[in-house]
Amino acid sequence: MLFPLVRDIRSLSPENQDVTVRGWVRTKREMKNLIFVEVNDGSSLSGIQCVFDREKDGGGNDGAAGNTAETLAALGTGAAVEIRGRLVPSPAAGQDAEVAVSGITVPGSAPAESYPLQKKHHSLEFLRERAHLRARTNTFGAVARVRSGLAFAVHRFFRERGFQYMHTPIITSNDAEGAGSMFRVTTLDPLASAKPESGYGGDFFGRAAYLTVSGQLEAETYACALSRVYTFGPAFRAENSNTVRHLAEFWMIEPEMAFASLEDDMDLAEDFLKSLFTAALQDCAEDIAFFDKHFSGGDGRGNGAGKGIAETLEAAATSKFVRMTYTEAVRELEKSAGSFEYRPCWGRDLQSEHEKFLTEKIAGGPVIVTSYPREIKAFYMKMNDDEKTVRAMDVLVPRLGEIIGGSQREDDLQKLSRRMEELGMKKDSYWWYLDLRRYGSVPHSGFGLGFERLIQYVTGMINIRDVIPYPRAAGQAEF
Amino acid sequence: MLFPLVRDIRSLSPENQDVTVRGWVRTKREMKNLIFVEVNDGSSLSGIQCVFDREKDGGGNDGAAGNTAETLAALGTGAAVEIRGRLVPSPAAGQDAEVAVSGITVPGSAPAESYPLQKKHHSLEFLRERAHLRARTNTFGAVARVRSGLAFAVHRFFRERGFQYMHTPIITSNDAEGAGSMFRVTTLDPLASAKPESGYGGDFFGRAAYLTVSGQLEAETYACALSRVYTFGPAFRAENSNTVRHLAEFWMIEPEMAFASLEDDMDLAEDFLKSLFTAALQDCAEDIAFFDKHFSGGDGRGNGAGKGIAETLEAAATSKFVRMTYTEAVRELEKSAGSFEYRPCWGRDLQSEHEKFLTEKIAGGPVIVTSYPREIKAFYMKMNDDEKTVRAMDVLVPRLGEIIGGSQREDDLQKLSRRMEELGMKKDSYWWYLDLRRYGSVPHSGFGLGFERLIQYVTGMINIRDVIPYPRAAGQAEF
Repeated sequence: MLFPLVRDIRSLSPENQDVTVRGWVRTKREMKNLIFVEVNDGSSLSGIQCVFDREKDGGGNDGAAGNTAETLAALGTGAAVEIRGRLVPSPAAGQDAEVAVSGITVPGSAPAESYPLQKKHHSLEFLRERAHLRARTNTFGAVARVRSGLAFAVHRFFRERGFQYMHTPIITSNDAEGAGSMFRVTTLDPLASAKPESGYGGDFFGRAAYLTVSGQLEAETYACALSRVYTFGPAFRAENSNTVRHLAEFWMIEPEMAFASLEDDMDLAEDFLKSLFTAALQDCAEDIAFFDKHFSGGDGRGNGAGKGIAETLEAAATSKFVRMTYTEAVRELEKSAGSFEYRPCWGRDLQSEHEKFLTEKIAGGPVIVTSYPREIKAFYMKMNDDEKTVRAMDVLVPRLGEIIGGSQREDDLQKLSRRMEELGMKKDSYWWYLDLRRYGSVPHSGFGLGFERLIQYVTGMINIRDVIPYPRAAGQAEF
Repeated sequence: MLFPLVRDIRSLSPENQDVTVRGWVRTKREMKNLIFVEVNDGSSLSGIQCVFDREKDGGGNDGAAGNTAETLAALGTGAAVEIRGRLVPSPAAGQDAEVAVSGITVPGSAPAESYPLQKKHHSLEFLRERAHLRARTNTFGAVARVRSGLAFAVHRFFRERGFQYMHTPIITSNDAEGAGSMFRVTTLDPLASAKPESGYGGDFFGRAAYLTVSGQLEAETYACALSRVYTFGPAFRAENSNTVRHLAEFWMIEPEMAFASLEDDMDLAEDFLKSLFTAALQDCAEDIAFFDKHFSGGDGRGNGAGKGIAETLEAAATSKFVRMTYTEAVRELEKSAGSFEYRPCWGRDLQSEHEKFLTEKIAGGPVIVTSYPREIKAFYMKMNDDEKTVRAMDVLVPRLGEIIGGSQREDDLQKLSRRMEELGMKKDSYWWYLDLRRYGSVPHSGFGLGFERLIQYVTGMINIRDVIPYPRAAGQAEF
């Protein structure tokens, strides 16, 4: 029922069969009587070459006025076309087949004087301002396909392992991290001169409401019913940090397992990342080869270790992740303290430079750091016997630093209550979360993976705003 | 690496192999020296029976104090357990295998005096107030598994047909429907006495921002680059309607295809629904059988046509959907005008009672209604030649009414501009949307499916708040 896409047509053997190519013109070259039109429909990085022979024109062309001259004039870069013809072996290098054109229809042209994507190479900054068109370029088409391919790989991975996908709430009255900068969700008008008498009691939800920073707490409730669950949904931070690593709106994957220790959590995280790296190499091979060619290397766009994108992924997919405690990590870092901007020091969070050093210089690959000081981690993490560190684990990868953060959760009611009190949290609003420790409590663990961080790692794109269709950041919510 | 779930253990042949069952106690029965414990871990509707023989107690039990008496005392409904034993053929009816217990550990008990899920049957209303525990019941466990199963079926369906999954923005400055009630997203405080001097220019995004009501407009931009895309994400309506059909936060699936007419759109919608109904029957067979048994019939919970859930799904999955125009539909309804609360009348929207009549009485199955009056449909729909109706299509199903709404989009710049002006819309803020009609415009079509509506239809659940883990509605944002 659905017509074949360009990638489907390209997979046919060129045995003179009739095909119709639908897509957008990337380039047009004229040589005497031959016109070469490269058409791309976004189904793959490669388009297909269509060759129109003026001498063989049968008149089956349909431009604005239905004649060949007007049709050919409309065939500029960006024009939408339907090209009918025969699939034949191509004499040109780099392609098996091309289309010998018998008829052309141009549903919509793209005036050369105004179409913004005329030039072959635009800067990423230029394209960021034209987010509605940038998926028509090689780079952003490839990013979009890798996102889609890896999203499917995420679902496949968890489904094969008995995890149920769940949707945790986006609007919430809780702060899962205990300390996040949250966006308010309201039907009140902050610019209104009259304030509502009942305060947030008069707001839509009858209370103050926010955009979620994490679905973890709700995921825990379902893990304690269905054993294994995961979320894959949007999360939000109202942090005014204008960096290449932060977004106000991003997508997060959060598995949660009952009857699972921190070791089980690390095993799952390692399997998960390896499976995603393998999926990128196998399911998105053409696009990864493109990134490997254009976004690898030492030009500030590639990886710090001087390896290509594909090579780093292959290495990470087959290596054993090195595991070390935070205390061990700090000890290693102290040996090279002179090479850092921030001095490594037990009790302080690891900086990005420290994380990269651990992966690139010490381990030569991914590292899982465990048992962080409790002061720098969230309230829900299970305390170790030393009562100084918690059963947290971060997965660090070369080039990027932290890609996954997780922990075993505190499943003891008394210990969790005490910790919340120490931190001055309002226990009342977490009654349901504490209920999990009252009724059938089990050891359980989980982690979070920022989907955009993953796409950055797999594509080599430096700016996180280039791996999500419509990035949201301070001052940025157009489209 | 991951331990076998109960559904995995149940699929083994009972040949005296050692197993460990991890889950939560549903029931415990004592008969002389035998204790029967039904354990469920949420991996399937069915749990597994574990039989403890006091006479054979080897002492491998581990309660609060590590001895058998305390362990058995802790084995109440809701307790978390790890039970070791041998999988043996069961003499009981309705199960092939059971576990002959050799050792029991109780990581967390559930005090009978306070655990809310003691009773076997709680009302749906009672459980709605305990959303953090309700997935531990048969009904809500089954809803959760069907949600997960169908979410996967959605991704599989589109992936097999060359659609790329994309994430459209949640926070937006546009109103895709041109008339929705939207939630504001802000870092300003509506209760603050001082108003920001620069208005929303001083807000986080430097402009007024809202939660999206639909990802369609942004999906169109990607369809005009990648040919076929779909979204699957949350959408929001700030409507104060306290009904069994509305949520303030829900999940929506929106495919969008380039080079596609309204007929292509109808074909896709029909294939899509049939494939989801088939997936429910095949991938979620045990859970659907449960709903068929408990939520079918004429008790106000089942379907209007007197058929069971499974039968309705099978019929819809194999039938040809009836197609008729809105004008034909109104003519049919007028013949039975006396039986309706609202008189059918050309130019007015179809009421739920009309939609049900068309499917249940006229067609005896799903119906696709096309060519609605333009006044009752959105600005972006393509005008028919009569200039009175638009190329819209709604898919209606028995029991529920509208389940899908879609259209061919207006791809003509002049016509779309004129329509936006007629409706008094701010064209400036849609410059990027209009660009799609300036550069390589193509006929394109798509639709939206509310995921919770689908789950309602497939499970027979009457109240939409019972098919999403944590429902959001006016006055409701706890957890």
